[in-house]
Amino acid sequence: MTTSYNQIAGQSLERLAALSDGIFAVAMTLLVLDLRAPAAAAIHNEHDLWRALVALSPRLLMYMMSFMTLGIFWVGQQTQLNHLVRSDRSLSWIHLAFLFVVSITPFSTAFLAEFIQYRPALLVYWLNILLLGTTLYFSWVCAMGTRLVKPDLPPEIAIAIKRRIVIGQSFYAFGALLCIFLNTYWSIGFIVLVQLYYAIAPRIPGRSRA
Amino acid sequence: MTTSYNQIAGQSLERLAALSDGIFAVAMTLLVLDLRAPAAAAIHNEHDLWRALVALSPRLLMYMMSFMTLGIFWVGQQTQLNHLVRSDRSLSWIHLAFLFVVSITPFSTAFLAEFIQYRPALLVYWLNILLLGTTLYFSWVCAMGTRLVKPDLPPEIAIAIKRRIVIGQSFYAFGALLCIFLNTYWSIGFIVLVQLYYAIAPRIPGRSRA
Amino acid sequence: MTTSYNQIAGQSLERLAALSDGIFAVAMTLLVLDLRAPAAAAIHNEHDLWRALVALSPRLLMYMMSFMTLGIFWVGQQTQLNHLVRSDRSLSWIHLAFLFVVSITPFSTAFLAEFIQYRPALLVYWLNILLLGTTLYFSWVCAMGTRLVKPDLPPEIAIAIKRRIVIGQSFYAFGALLCIFLNTYWSIGFIVLVQLYYAIAPRIPGRSRA
Amino acid sequence: MTTSYNQIAGQSLERLAALSDGIFAVAMTLLVLDLRAPAAAAIHNEHDLWRALVALSPRLLMYMMSFMTLGIFWVGQQTQLNHLVRSDRSLSWIHLAFLFVVSITPFSTAFLAEFIQYRPALLVYWLNILLLGTTLYFSWVCAMGTRLVKPDLPPEIAIAIKRRIVIGQSFYAFGALLCIFLNTYWSIGFIVLVQLYYAIAPRIPGRSRA
Repeated sequence: MTTSYNQIAGQSLERLAALSDGIFAVAMTLLVLDLRAPAAAAIHNEHDLWRALVALSPRLLMYMMSFMTLGIFWVGQQTQLNHLVRSDRSLSWIHLAFLFVVSITPFSTAFLAEFIQYRPALLVYWLNILLLGTTLYFSWVCAMGTRLVKPDLPPEIAIAIKRRIVIGQSFYAFGALLCIFLNTYWSIGFIVLVQLYYAIAPRIPGRSRA
Repeated sequence: MTTSYNQIAGQSLERLAALSDGIFAVAMTLLVLDLRAPAAAAIHNEHDLWRALVALSPRLLMYMMSFMTLGIFWVGQQTQLNHLVRSDRSLSWIHLAFLFVVSITPFSTAFLAEFIQYRPALLVYWLNILLLGTTLYFSWVCAMGTRLVKPDLPPEIAIAIKRRIVIGQSFYAFGALLCIFLNTYWSIGFIVLVQLYYAIAPRIPGRSRA
Repeated sequence: MTTSYNQIAGQSLERLAALSDGIFAVAMTLLVLDLRAPAAAAIHNEHDLWRALVALSPRLLMYMMSFMTLGIFWVGQQTQLNHLVRSDRSLSWIHLAFLFVVSITPFSTAFLAEFIQYRPALLVYWLNILLLGTTLYFSWVCAMGTRLVKPDLPPEIAIAIKRRIVIGQSFYAFGALLCIFLNTYWSIGFIVLVQLYYAIAPRIPGRSRA
Repeated sequence: MTTSYNQIAGQSLERLAALSDGIFAVAMTLLVLDLRAPAAAAIHNEHDLWRALVALSPRLLMYMMSFMTLGIFWVGQQTQLNHLVRSDRSLSWIHLAFLFVVSITPFSTAFLAEFIQYRPALLVYWLNILLLGTTLYFSWVCAMGTRLVKPDLPPEIAIAIKRRIVIGQSFYAFGALLCIFLNTYWSIGFIVLVQLYYAIAPRIPGRSRA
């Protein structure tokens, strides 16, 4: 009896995109709240101030890392939604699950930065990235299955979207595994390199214009 | 004399949708602020860190619950607005009342999580859900009465939207009543089950495609 | 020489509306952060919890008042923007000034609630409302002067928009003046009544359909 | 092999604009959180309250300055995006870098306000403005190079957009240099004057209508 409601619910792509942009915007700025000017009482000259700035730099780096991670998945989600005709209730809920993980990302990044030498912290961070990838992959499979994608979508684009997630997640999983054989620093280094590649790579001239 | 202004005020559905998405986005991420990495001084090895993570899990659960509640009503509001031609001043104010209750939801969820064994906490939480449903129901009745819905809306959809709210709210009210005959844990368990049904049900294949 | 840039800058109404909705959404939810569950240690039974809830109610009222004030001006700004063809650089900056005052509103409401018996608190609150009205009035005058309004706008609508602001601000100013002859409680009571009228009035059947 | 994905990723101007408006909205309201009503215990009469208000005014000024800086670059980004046909992956990442700097702006403004007499604080603030200008300039060069701008864009507009950034940044750099020859107060005064010019100038009648 409720099927009728479920058929008409959650169809607006615009609303889904707008909610996503709102949640991404808040999640991307949450960690700025941790950047605070040092107490004026502790600063007596310019030298003290330079030192206070240097002491702030790990937080700034962590914030950049969180921003970059979210940027990668913002581009990924957008690319999917651009190829849809409309949404439906199931797809809206998959994206709500995705957005939930998005909103957790600043926490797990801060958690990793605080306990960088411990494997559980790395595991939490990797789990976060894995869940972002999984929900996004599942969303695409679902959209393909229920024919929400634009009818004229070339099949190679559908494949490219899936392949990108699988390849990316394989690299992240490999990076996470490094902490068993080597240590967490190798893991983080590898994961950040993969992320930097995804963020900067397309800017290389000749590729982005291809 | 002011009627003339009231006739032209608050007609933009796009603005109403955008404000709603903004308020939902902020409300959905508010409780992440309570997820904080444990103090580094208290963590001496990986075992401590696992324990700290387990200690954080009730807050994470509570956050998920708040996110899910808001997700249900976000889908509900969107479904209504999708079927309107435009808004007017009255409808804008009904939705502003709805959004006010939306922004209170993280508080009442946190309140329930903190005092889970006390009936006033459950009552506050249930009142919150009741107000979300009531404003949304009232908004639909108003939109139908002032002919803001699309002229080609099939009457069964209009009925489905009202029926869904009434059935949902009946279940929530029944759940809330359980705390009188049994205790608050039964109430919460029942309400969460109803919410999970509303969030996950349409994903069952065969129904969402019907 | 820079005129050429100024001629093309800030023309997007959509961007102005989206930024406005974002700032309104954040401003409208800022005061929720002050609603916090009471410390669990101080609550030993349901009676304590009821008392803690009652103790929270002034903050909730203050939050409602801030939400309602912002709602009134959100509707007002939206009504203006709905009648424009495009924006320009000057109009964008007038609205940025308006949005600055919007973002200050939660502060001045909290300030009034905290020092309700003192006239400076009332003056700050009234100044806030005055600035909201002034920037909005100025924005309309500017849009009319630089022909940004839709060419088919009936002149009575242009007049209705200006009249509404002038009448509203006159009532608020009268309310503020009451604190000189009577006291601040009379002022606040009068201002809240005016706001309630603006928020609820159009819902009266027969007028909103007129 | 991943080129295919990069070709289709990040093309939505609407999403980019919406994320930008969200991040600007949050960044523009972040410093309001520092405006807090003084402790009620310290206020015994209206005179105390006036003094507390005066004590709050530097924070309010700092907040206005941060709001104005962000407003200038919001208008600047919007002006660019208005002239594009679509985005691509590279451009999205340049704007994500721009938005990262946007979200840092409240921090560097607060930092400057706290340590106004020290040159490192001024350097941080100027670096922030420089990065905002640089990313925006780079974004325009990139959009021109990869033909993302509307094909009918008059060349003088393309030049006007670049010239505005270069002239603005030259003034800011000159202002920053003043702290070497004079002191930081001269630098700040000069920079604020330049910003005020950019914010208020086009409102001068006769120019905005030209």
